[in-house]
Amino acid sequence: MNLAYRERTQEELRRELAAVQQQYEELKAKGMKLNMARGKPGKAQLDLVSDMLRIIADPDDCISDGLDVRNYGELTGLPAAKRLFADILGCKPEECFIGGNASLQLMYDTVSKAFTHGLLHSEQPWSRLERVKWLCPAPGYDRHFKVTQSFGCEMITVPMTPTGPDMALVEELIRDPEVKGMWCVPKYSNPDGIIYSDETVHRIAKLKPAAPDFLLMWDNAYCVHEFEGDFVPFEDILTLCREAGNPNMVFEYASTSKITFPGGGISVMASSVDNLKYMEKLETIQIISYDKVNQLRHVKYLRDKEHTLELMKKHADIVSPKFRCVLRHLDEQIAPLGIATWQRPKGGYFVSVNTEPGLAKRTLALCREAGVTMTGAGATFPYGIDPNDSNIRIAPTLPPVEELECAMEIFCVCLRMAALEKLIAL
Amino acid sequence: MNLAYRERTQEELRRELAAVQQQYEELKAKGMKLNMARGKPGKAQLDLVSDMLRIIADPDDCISDGLDVRNYGELTGLPAAKRLFADILGCKPEECFIGGNASLQLMYDTVSKAFTHGLLHSEQPWSRLERVKWLCPAPGYDRHFKVTQSFGCEMITVPMTPTGPDMALVEELIRDPEVKGMWCVPKYSNPDGIIYSDETVHRIAKLKPAAPDFLLMWDNAYCVHEFEGDFVPFEDILTLCREAGNPNMVFEYASTSKITFPGGGISVMASSVDNLKYMEKLETIQIISYDKVNQLRHVKYLRDKEHTLELMKKHADIVSPKFRCVLRHLDEQIAPLGIATWQRPKGGYFVSVNTEPGLAKRTLALCREAGVTMTGAGATFPYGIDPNDSNIRIAPTLPPVEELECAMEIFCVCLRMAALEKLIAL
Repeated sequence: MNLAYRERTQEELRRELAAVQQQYEELKAKGMKLNMARGKPGKAQLDLVSDMLRIIADPDDCISDGLDVRNYGELTGLPAAKRLFADILGCKPEECFIGGNASLQLMYDTVSKAFTHGLLHSEQPWSRLERVKWLCPAPGYDRHFKVTQSFGCEMITVPMTPTGPDMALVEELIRDPEVKGMWCVPKYSNPDGIIYSDETVHRIAKLKPAAPDFLLMWDNAYCVHEFEGDFVPFEDILTLCREAGNPNMVFEYASTSKITFPGGGISVMASSVDNLKYMEKLETIQIISYDKVNQLRHVKYLRDKEHTLELMKKHADIVSPKFRCVLRHLDEQIAPLGIATWQRPKGGYFVSVNTEPGLAKRTLALCREAGVTMTGAGATFPYGIDPNDSNIRIAPTLPPVEELECAMEIFCVCLRMAALEKLIAL
Repeated sequence: MNLAYRERTQEELRRELAAVQQQYEELKAKGMKLNMARGKPGKAQLDLVSDMLRIIADPDDCISDGLDVRNYGELTGLPAAKRLFADILGCKPEECFIGGNASLQLMYDTVSKAFTHGLLHSEQPWSRLERVKWLCPAPGYDRHFKVTQSFGCEMITVPMTPTGPDMALVEELIRDPEVKGMWCVPKYSNPDGIIYSDETVHRIAKLKPAAPDFLLMWDNAYCVHEFEGDFVPFEDILTLCREAGNPNMVFEYASTSKITFPGGGISVMASSVDNLKYMEKLETIQIISYDKVNQLRHVKYLRDKEHTLELMKKHADIVSPKFRCVLRHLDEQIAPLGIATWQRPKGGYFVSVNTEPGLAKRTLALCREAGVTMTGAGATFPYGIDPNDSNIRIAPTLPPVEELECAMEIFCVCLRMAALEKLIAL
């Protein structure tokens, strides 16, 4: 019987709940232990790239553009690493600052320096301001929101649409000089997997914020992370901002965390030469350089954009069956019941499920009880509060497909149970 | 003729200057190009440790205590890396937080977080305070002073003595609640190469600062860096502070920058478990973990303190002839003239020369003109201002001995010229 739940009688719902509860107890008895809370690559992906471990083996391998990468120096990164990221992002090498294994760290530092020292166009450090407001397209990336929360920003939720953030609202909000920045994941947004439309990207580049030091945080985390179909090209946001008269508004970030090793990759911060010059003066006090040996490993292993895209096809071969598994379970077991909708992304690391209001927390609590830990309910909203208690982020890349099958079985049963409990209580 | 300059007649001095000027012109004509501004290991030292590049080659090598180091996780660092540094520093593994390739970054972050969020015992973030004062034993490390300068601290110079900072003055100054911290390099201090005496270390641990969140920055940069004689043991500052009732006063730092690769090592921040718990809550917003692949490389390569000390003996074989070269030139060419004194360190990375007042800038300008760039005059004092224009930091490790011979030849001639110019002008 596949009738939508809301069209069933209370008696039918009660019978369904009894059946679902029995399924739940049976699945729970299997004693599963699976953590799907984060977008973590699986072991097969790590093995895929492990040749990189051997790519620098001797002192002679350690020279890049005449520099010995083993020694101190080159605060802004190896020229060759800048060329690699410039190729991938479509910007210029001199617009790239190469970081350590975490782009999150570069993002945090940018916000932190805005507070302690101010940005290029700041009148004063933000720590001296009474209030800093920040735009948070949501659902979004929990770690972004936690950075701005940690610095005491007043976070304003901007709804996501199928083409990106609600731009009419953004254009309205940035007229407030206390609004100092916005988080964006322009390609395969976390968690929806939405690609901002060209129109959205152009409108963002053309924003005229009241704050002279408005900080557009452009986290291009999934810039080459297609798992289905061909590479989807994107415009260079630095160029667009420059052409729109906003050369210093944007800082773009990317990393190899999901290209090579999450625990040992490299990252980039791309921005105008003027912004980088300003930041370099502050960075030189903080660090002599990031790990240049690892930068060179990546340069030798990834080579250029074309070669990187070939590697990403191999990652896709590993992860696409996992995404198909998630969608198959949702399509077969949830779609007919009318209790949730979801995106069908072709890249990124997540499937974003929107349940009927009020089901997310209960669903995830049931999952956890049955041994499957997923991203906490609310995590995809500022302050961890989902006003509809509806959004659930599924991160399918870590487990092997067999385990994922079992986890999705559990997830679907839990979601049905949560929906039935609610409908019966009404 | 080897009479001290101050005992010579003006006529003798003028004749000496003419001779020295001619030597200078001859040396300048050689067209030397050498940068000795920083304490950079030389190529032979980098080659010495380059087997480390191969120590992790396969996926099977990437497991440590059951963890796959290639993936996300373990914010505070690999347990094995904590055990390694705990062994070296004499503290407990749970008192260690493992960072990236730069301990400077961990130090900067600690100060930065004191300003943006406050420390464990802070009443409020330091950015809200009208004034933050900071104790700077000097001569000291320029990068330390630049960190506290960058955050607007009012830096107070504390003279260094042969047993460490002038403790009577320190004990007096910390009675001011606006004095929030102090920089220390307890072993082979930069640049003097002084080891703080046991008495000094104990007095520091027993300080009773008026500020409840006083931050003792204990940069143990040269903890195993003897280049002459046996390893000199040191007491664990964490234990001493705990025993003195100051468990949360100290953060200790160290790195492998001068053990393995300056451009690709690992670092540690050691502090009380309570301090680390507090910092972890802030760090988790900034980064998912530092590079764990590189942490494991170091664990496999360095193994433990004993094995690390064996490696340091091999470094000593490479660098000790360089330090002997520096001292020989000073002993032979400068000592009889009575125009400077210097330390004779047995470890660390520098020889610290104190000229007669007013000679440092001129000497270094002459060196630069002859192609030898050394650490800028004043760099070893807060705000880059040496009140006596006297301290010069010689960093002999980068050049091969033959080049160093020539550089020291130039240095001694420049120092003599500067002294003569001054004496003649009087």
